[in-house]
Amino acid sequence: MNVSFKLTILGSSGAIPAYGRFPTSQYLNIQNKHFLIDSGEGVQMQLMRYQIPIHKIDHIFISHLHGDHYLGLMGLLFSMHLQKRVNDLHLHSQKGLDEIILLQLKYSKSSLNYRIIFHAFDAAQIQLLHEDDVLTVHTIPLLHKLPCAGFLFREKTKQKKINKEKLKEGMLLQHIAQLKTGVDVLDDMGNLLYRNNEYTLAAQRSLSYAFCSDTAWNENMIEQIRAVDLLYHEATFMEEEKDKARETQHSTSAEAATMAKQCATKKLLIGHFSARYRELEPMLAEAREIFSNTELAIEGNTFELPS
Amino acid sequence: MNVSFKLTILGSSGAIPAYGRFPTSQYLNIQNKHFLIDSGEGVQMQLMRYQIPIHKIDHIFISHLHGDHYLGLMGLLFSMHLQKRVNDLHLHSQKGLDEIILLQLKYSKSSLNYRIIFHAFDAAQIQLLHEDDVLTVHTIPLLHKLPCAGFLFREKTKQKKINKEKLKEGMLLQHIAQLKTGVDVLDDMGNLLYRNNEYTLAAQRSLSYAFCSDTAWNENMIEQIRAVDLLYHEATFMEEEKDKARETQHSTSAEAATMAKQCATKKLLIGHFSARYRELEPMLAEAREIFSNTELAIEGNTFELPS
Repeated sequence: MNVSFKLTILGSSGAIPAYGRFPTSQYLNIQNKHFLIDSGEGVQMQLMRYQIPIHKIDHIFISHLHGDHYLGLMGLLFSMHLQKRVNDLHLHSQKGLDEIILLQLKYSKSSLNYRIIFHAFDAAQIQLLHEDDVLTVHTIPLLHKLPCAGFLFREKTKQKKINKEKLKEGMLLQHIAQLKTGVDVLDDMGNLLYRNNEYTLAAQRSLSYAFCSDTAWNENMIEQIRAVDLLYHEATFMEEEKDKARETQHSTSAEAATMAKQCATKKLLIGHFSARYRELEPMLAEAREIFSNTELAIEGNTFELPS
Repeated sequence: MNVSFKLTILGSSGAIPAYGRFPTSQYLNIQNKHFLIDSGEGVQMQLMRYQIPIHKIDHIFISHLHGDHYLGLMGLLFSMHLQKRVNDLHLHSQKGLDEIILLQLKYSKSSLNYRIIFHAFDAAQIQLLHEDDVLTVHTIPLLHKLPCAGFLFREKTKQKKINKEKLKEGMLLQHIAQLKTGVDVLDDMGNLLYRNNEYTLAAQRSLSYAFCSDTAWNENMIEQIRAVDLLYHEATFMEEEKDKARETQHSTSAEAATMAKQCATKKLLIGHFSARYRELEPMLAEAREIFSNTELAIEGNTFELPS
């Protein structure tokens, strides 16, 4: 069976990686399209550890240019080269990362055997970064010390399924293709041949995932991410460190949960934990007080969405 | 007891980190002077894992600008900043790394709360990089695709120990200091007061460590590293992949062992293993055929030199 919508957590740590936790990165597989979100230090080791096929990743999205969100990228790019990648790689980031990559290629006297197509975005705007046959990816403007964007992955409306028990002799392939799109099939004269509802089953629901890191409490994004199926929201601190969260423009676990509640997501994942917290259960408990369907986004955890 | 000469291996991997191995880095403690040699991706996690106090590291030596030898540096520099480092940090590298660091600081809008003193070296020459009261560090010119230098750490001649049983009433502190340096103590008129040999024990031996990665077989360095107490020599491949070693300007395990024999070191460590080798015992066996006192330089292994 093909995976339909599966998220794998590669890193759960805030700026200082501690207790074996890695900085932020996540791997997302939607209908066999493969995406990497942020690339904290060690991302290539984590991809190998969880046996994710790095050659299939064609799009990488970098939220912002703090080191804990991109310092693993360069090692991954070199390893893709050494593993003989040839396919284009699309890199979505703010301006600057292209310059950082080029400078490091220059000093290593390296010329990659694949192309990096660099797409610079403006983190202050909602922008469409990627669209293909099954989904769209938009930026989510966040509130942080540096310009920073989250990413909203949203499946397009899916085709209806044909009810195979109702198929008739003489039905042509083009009739079936039309039925899948949800319309009735007419003959050349405009007369009804096949009424759609009689031959089809309901389309599967389109799923959505919002990745929101790093950010202070940000009311502005509620409208954009309303009713997403899955929300990842950073929770660097607990409420007892609320002042520290304000100062560094991060969120508390309670704030992440409040956001989950206000945007009416089905499930909340929290991550980007400060090195001051060895144990994460109190962090989880704080969130669940407000939004019960919360999980820790820790290394190796996977979350599949039922369609 | 103070550690006198202890090496900790933080990474053993070649260019592609595999099987949980990390790219090259090593931590060296000589008479409580703390050095980091190379800084492959993940070095800060490895330092934490082995409970090495990163604030004590005042000198970092980077052999060359291939990513697997320096990509962990930036994360470490940021973490030192976040952990409130104030002491100067001396960074020894070829030109270019300074530019790479400055560019990344610029885009993260960061200003470190400590100074990095950048010392550029010419990898083609034997150069003195560092000297203090107990040791010297010189470059070792290597043969690689990029300009690349190893590092030779050599303790200075140590002071003699005072034989406490022989101490006499009326001996002044300056007399003792003179005896430690190995000279006889004379009075103001030039008459012998204390004959050195009667009051002192032999000085401990001065120890030395040569770090040689990355390099092809390199006869030119034999003279410089002759009789070092400990030699680390890269062994990316086994002899069966000798052609690949030539092409990429790396060494085989047998070549590392031959170098150990020719320079008459006491002990050889091999590392920088290609991702094609899951098991390292055959690699070790190949070296031991030629030089029996060989060990694998793998993560977490420590090597102490007896003085």
